[in-house]
Amino acid sequence: MSLNSFGHLFRVTTWGESHGPALGAVIDGCPPGVAIDESALQQWLDRRKPGQSKYTTQRREADEVEILSGVFEGKTTGTPIQLMIRNTDQRSKDYGDIAEKFRPGHADITYWQKYGIRDYRGGGRSSARETAARVAAGGVARAALDALAPGLSITGYMVQMGPHQIDRSRFDVAEIEQNPFWVPDAQAAEDWAGYLDGLRKSGDSTGAVIEVTAKGAPPGLGAPVYGKLDTDLAAAMMSINAVKGVEIGDGMAAAALTGSANADEITMGPDGPVYNSNHAGGILGGISTGQEIVVRFAVKPTSSILTPRKTITKTGEETEIVTKGRHDPCVGIRAVPVGEAMMACVLLDHLLLHRGQVGGAGGKIG
Amino acid sequence: MSLNSFGHLFRVTTWGESHGPALGAVIDGCPPGVAIDESALQQWLDRRKPGQSKYTTQRREADEVEILSGVFEGKTTGTPIQLMIRNTDQRSKDYGDIAEKFRPGHADITYWQKYGIRDYRGGGRSSARETAARVAAGGVARAALDALAPGLSITGYMVQMGPHQIDRSRFDVAEIEQNPFWVPDAQAAEDWAGYLDGLRKSGDSTGAVIEVTAKGAPPGLGAPVYGKLDTDLAAAMMSINAVKGVEIGDGMAAAALTGSANADEITMGPDGPVYNSNHAGGILGGISTGQEIVVRFAVKPTSSILTPRKTITKTGEETEIVTKGRHDPCVGIRAVPVGEAMMACVLLDHLLLHRGQVGGAGGKIG
Amino acid sequence: MSLNSFGHLFRVTTWGESHGPALGAVIDGCPPGVAIDESALQQWLDRRKPGQSKYTTQRREADEVEILSGVFEGKTTGTPIQLMIRNTDQRSKDYGDIAEKFRPGHADITYWQKYGIRDYRGGGRSSARETAARVAAGGVARAALDALAPGLSITGYMVQMGPHQIDRSRFDVAEIEQNPFWVPDAQAAEDWAGYLDGLRKSGDSTGAVIEVTAKGAPPGLGAPVYGKLDTDLAAAMMSINAVKGVEIGDGMAAAALTGSANADEITMGPDGPVYNSNHAGGILGGISTGQEIVVRFAVKPTSSILTPRKTITKTGEETEIVTKGRHDPCVGIRAVPVGEAMMACVLLDHLLLHRGQVGGAGGKIG
Amino acid sequence: MSLNSFGHLFRVTTWGESHGPALGAVIDGCPPGVAIDESALQQWLDRRKPGQSKYTTQRREADEVEILSGVFEGKTTGTPIQLMIRNTDQRSKDYGDIAEKFRPGHADITYWQKYGIRDYRGGGRSSARETAARVAAGGVARAALDALAPGLSITGYMVQMGPHQIDRSRFDVAEIEQNPFWVPDAQAAEDWAGYLDGLRKSGDSTGAVIEVTAKGAPPGLGAPVYGKLDTDLAAAMMSINAVKGVEIGDGMAAAALTGSANADEITMGPDGPVYNSNHAGGILGGISTGQEIVVRFAVKPTSSILTPRKTITKTGEETEIVTKGRHDPCVGIRAVPVGEAMMACVLLDHLLLHRGQVGGAGGKIG
Repeated sequence: MSLNSFGHLFRVTTWGESHGPALGAVIDGCPPGVAIDESALQQWLDRRKPGQSKYTTQRREADEVEILSGVFEGKTTGTPIQLMIRNTDQRSKDYGDIAEKFRPGHADITYWQKYGIRDYRGGGRSSARETAARVAAGGVARAALDALAPGLSITGYMVQMGPHQIDRSRFDVAEIEQNPFWVPDAQAAEDWAGYLDGLRKSGDSTGAVIEVTAKGAPPGLGAPVYGKLDTDLAAAMMSINAVKGVEIGDGMAAAALTGSANADEITMGPDGPVYNSNHAGGILGGISTGQEIVVRFAVKPTSSILTPRKTITKTGEETEIVTKGRHDPCVGIRAVPVGEAMMACVLLDHLLLHRGQVGGAGGKIG
Repeated sequence: MSLNSFGHLFRVTTWGESHGPALGAVIDGCPPGVAIDESALQQWLDRRKPGQSKYTTQRREADEVEILSGVFEGKTTGTPIQLMIRNTDQRSKDYGDIAEKFRPGHADITYWQKYGIRDYRGGGRSSARETAARVAAGGVARAALDALAPGLSITGYMVQMGPHQIDRSRFDVAEIEQNPFWVPDAQAAEDWAGYLDGLRKSGDSTGAVIEVTAKGAPPGLGAPVYGKLDTDLAAAMMSINAVKGVEIGDGMAAAALTGSANADEITMGPDGPVYNSNHAGGILGGISTGQEIVVRFAVKPTSSILTPRKTITKTGEETEIVTKGRHDPCVGIRAVPVGEAMMACVLLDHLLLHRGQVGGAGGKIG
Repeated sequence: MSLNSFGHLFRVTTWGESHGPALGAVIDGCPPGVAIDESALQQWLDRRKPGQSKYTTQRREADEVEILSGVFEGKTTGTPIQLMIRNTDQRSKDYGDIAEKFRPGHADITYWQKYGIRDYRGGGRSSARETAARVAAGGVARAALDALAPGLSITGYMVQMGPHQIDRSRFDVAEIEQNPFWVPDAQAAEDWAGYLDGLRKSGDSTGAVIEVTAKGAPPGLGAPVYGKLDTDLAAAMMSINAVKGVEIGDGMAAAALTGSANADEITMGPDGPVYNSNHAGGILGGISTGQEIVVRFAVKPTSSILTPRKTITKTGEETEIVTKGRHDPCVGIRAVPVGEAMMACVLLDHLLLHRGQVGGAGGKIG
Repeated sequence: MSLNSFGHLFRVTTWGESHGPALGAVIDGCPPGVAIDESALQQWLDRRKPGQSKYTTQRREADEVEILSGVFEGKTTGTPIQLMIRNTDQRSKDYGDIAEKFRPGHADITYWQKYGIRDYRGGGRSSARETAARVAAGGVARAALDALAPGLSITGYMVQMGPHQIDRSRFDVAEIEQNPFWVPDAQAAEDWAGYLDGLRKSGDSTGAVIEVTAKGAPPGLGAPVYGKLDTDLAAAMMSINAVKGVEIGDGMAAAALTGSANADEITMGPDGPVYNSNHAGGILGGISTGQEIVVRFAVKPTSSILTPRKTITKTGEETEIVTKGRHDPCVGIRAVPVGEAMMACVLLDHLLLHRGQVGGAGGKIG
């Protein structure tokens, strides 16, 4: 039971601190024979990498991943895969301020209270830098999914920044890669740029809502009742730094519906069941239906801001803190590839679990 | 790795189907010497028990719990505690309809697709009857918490039914036990009664939002980064039947805040840190701060309704279904004690984890 | 992480005490669609059941197993299977002596030192009665193996009682079921009867060595490096009450061999690799070779004897104890079906693990 | 559930292959505040390091360990500790022979059959080089034990090489570090040197038996019934390369004893219970008694020998193989520090587990 691990059969353990020599992930249980190399992983890391627009932290990290084990002649061997990313831009600055003061909204105070020791440099283990390891692991998961579930595609995007939501009538998946916010709405991208510029200049930050979907997942994934697909997705997303809420399908809005409005009616299509709607987000009783799987999560605003906030020191004195440094005005932006990576890992894990317990013996319809 | 289990050190495995002879929970890892007997557990089960008002299913189950192991002379021994609840009111009715047809919004179709076999009687394993086992386990967790964290109190209540939210200015904790909805707002209780009556008579149902809080939890609970307290709470709540969203603190609304508004400022009180607000819901970086822990979850409307819905049969024929029987018009009502039970189990688990890894060596402030 | 559980995907959790109302096992992760009923399990329990000859305890337990969940219309559903066995012959005798005194060789003193409370009646949780639950679970595993690995057969037998070993030149598998010792050597059975009678009459007991083999297991089972097949078998056997040693293949004797003598040479047969010997016991690098899997374990002599032994009381006073009651003069006899059950559970578990990670993608030879 | 991991709360995951760029261990769950640095770990690695005498492989590996995470200013932080050891002496030799042929006694054939791909260079993941990671992890465990259980000492030594056993009457713990075999018997050290020289020159190898003891472990460690201390020790030792048997206390010899001879009688000493003997090896019912904990394991002879052995190729052709290279004539020698490391990890793990579940609430005697 490692608490820095997730997944059942495709098990990912991450390690490393923001300002240590390196961080990474060791993956156990990957199927053998999956074609993988460093460049295949790098494409995903490059999406999360800092410093790519003025809307993300200006810390310069190459985020180059090294595969140290588990891959032989370009293929996974079924043994543990160690992925290491060197930290290269840990500026040798003075940490005196945050070494003594607890930054509000950060884990500084709780790590101290829990462990009696903390690596205060950049938040140490609690830094969002840890998510680089998730993205690397997600790259391995995607490669395995390509082999095991060929039609499956995973897409993440932002649907809300601060109080501003996208207009779903303008939803265009092709837009996602065209703007620095991963937003599928060109107009929103334009509007949000101005909004975020304003916040950034005023030394403030904002939150976001990310949606991640998976199309083409087979029915039957998920293991009731505590290894439900939605349970594992909720845990996966909630474990991402700064996430405060997770929704499946209609999510919190499901509470306001009537049963007749909420039930996704079923008809028969040429290839099996067809649903007239997808309030459930592709999951019933914790098991995938074969519909699109839809997860959303809310990221709180970056807590590292230039606006002074009241806090206390380790010795209990009241003071103020301003968090200088190179911070994302909306940390939610870089959470998009992280959410995709977690979706990939969870789906692969449940594919393997399903194959292990049930093999090809599931029920047919029609 | 049992997927019908949750918890790390305080590990609960539930078993049983809606219409089988019995269901229950086996708990492993409970501290020894905790005073417990069947009546202590029964008080919690009675809160979840069906048939207590016209707003819950009229199925008559005594939900009497038997302790079969792990307790000796009124105290836990540290060995597995088996809690068994006999099913007594499984009416010998004709299941022909739901044996062949998949009820929309239910797990009928996914269990079939996954396993190729399903116990269709009342939903089998996917029935919310499973939550009785959670409540029994939660009773054990509460007894252990009474010993280990004396000041801790857990309270669940409904904050939204269908589209109707409570008025927080009328919040009165004393009202919670005074109405059939566990709502801390007397006016809401009155209004909702009429709303739910109408739905029930029209053969429809509605959803709900439940909030569960824990006061008096010590700082330092939670184990980053995949065993975070909020991660485990999210998983625990999402695993409850019909839950579609989980929030910690401000939850999804955190996305709309600025960093300056969101950061809970810290000052120094006589007994340690004091926070000027609680947007974080008592958890920073996955670790409890010592503030009130606040979790909310949305329960979708009951899918078993008298309104006919389109569906298909096992052989792929299109048809309609009306789910007769004894169903809750708002299954969220009975989710309140379930949410409390999950909170109790998660907190106890993390208390034991913290004690195991850190002992009494946490950091002091001031 | 339940410490009263074993197995990875086929996960068995046992519960219950020697003199409580019942004991049992809950199995999670069993493949769906496996034909099983109570009589199929009973045949295995009847082999372990006490009171079947004068060489085992005279306690009269029917050891009737009830299936409380996870089986529907005679087939497993893929959900948890609860197997319960009522205790029926817990004589209401005076436990005063063992309540206060610690029996040497028993867990009385360690349970007390660990937990500060113990169910002293018959040893409580530490009683070998717990193994009835293992045998029931093993029956489920065997039924699943029948479906998944049709040619596989598991056989356990005694190869040593006290200082007396079998003569391997007289090995006859047909003899195993013909004598009360499960010994494949008719002459040994006769000799041992006299030896054990003598011990029994003198109020003493003796140990035994059990061998369990599996023929027809496919190559490829086992997951290096800490989930090796031999690692899991060693843990499974060592977890049985009174076991003090476990060997795979040549076991401890392998230390005395030279490398040239020990290496099982490989030639090519019509159906794949053929080994000229089996020093390895069918496992190389933690993975099955396809040869016969051979495990042995030593069971210490029954500690409950009529010979007075020195001990102390809870309050630290020195005293003597004579363990009256109905005890096995050689508890190893009834360990034979237990060892078989553990082998069945471990092999099924690894079949599922292998299917999960690798599917049908293993390497072919020739 | 990572199968390349062991431990419950102190959880070690190892990764890496014999001839890859590096190997290592990530440790999760280490208590915070433990003083540790690379030199503290290096002392243990140096004991296992190859090339230290003519009796171990002449491969030259510095086995220098780097701490990449989890340690800050010389102390553990409670977050994952990544320990990396670069492989530096992977000679760029021709692997053609072992790439196509399966070495008898090695995992070559089973890895191929399981995964359909294998890193054949030096055995890849199945190489005993993996044990360097265990020794590094064991160094961390020892540092934590120094803090948590100050009087505890762990000692490993060889008690048998090939057919030659030590003479226990000559047992002298001071001798262990004085000879290349870690043998506590000066005469045996001398005799074995000649024996092993002969084997080495003839291109053969031999097995060994290692004993590992722990003095000063508190009573109460171990968690029945599948997380018993002896169960976990058996698994830990059996998971070491080439181990074929594990014994606790009297081990296999316990089978030959009578109950009256086997029961360790208890008297009362000034500091608590005193046992008149230690047939049980310090463990009763899976829980430590406070006596010396005694484990033994048998290591089979090195399978890499210069004596030609029959085998087959991947394509199924019969052939012979001679394993050239730099191999240990008795791989058991270097298993001594590995066994010590596993003992340290298991004991620390159970100390944390016990603290988690029971705290200080165990039972007192007298």
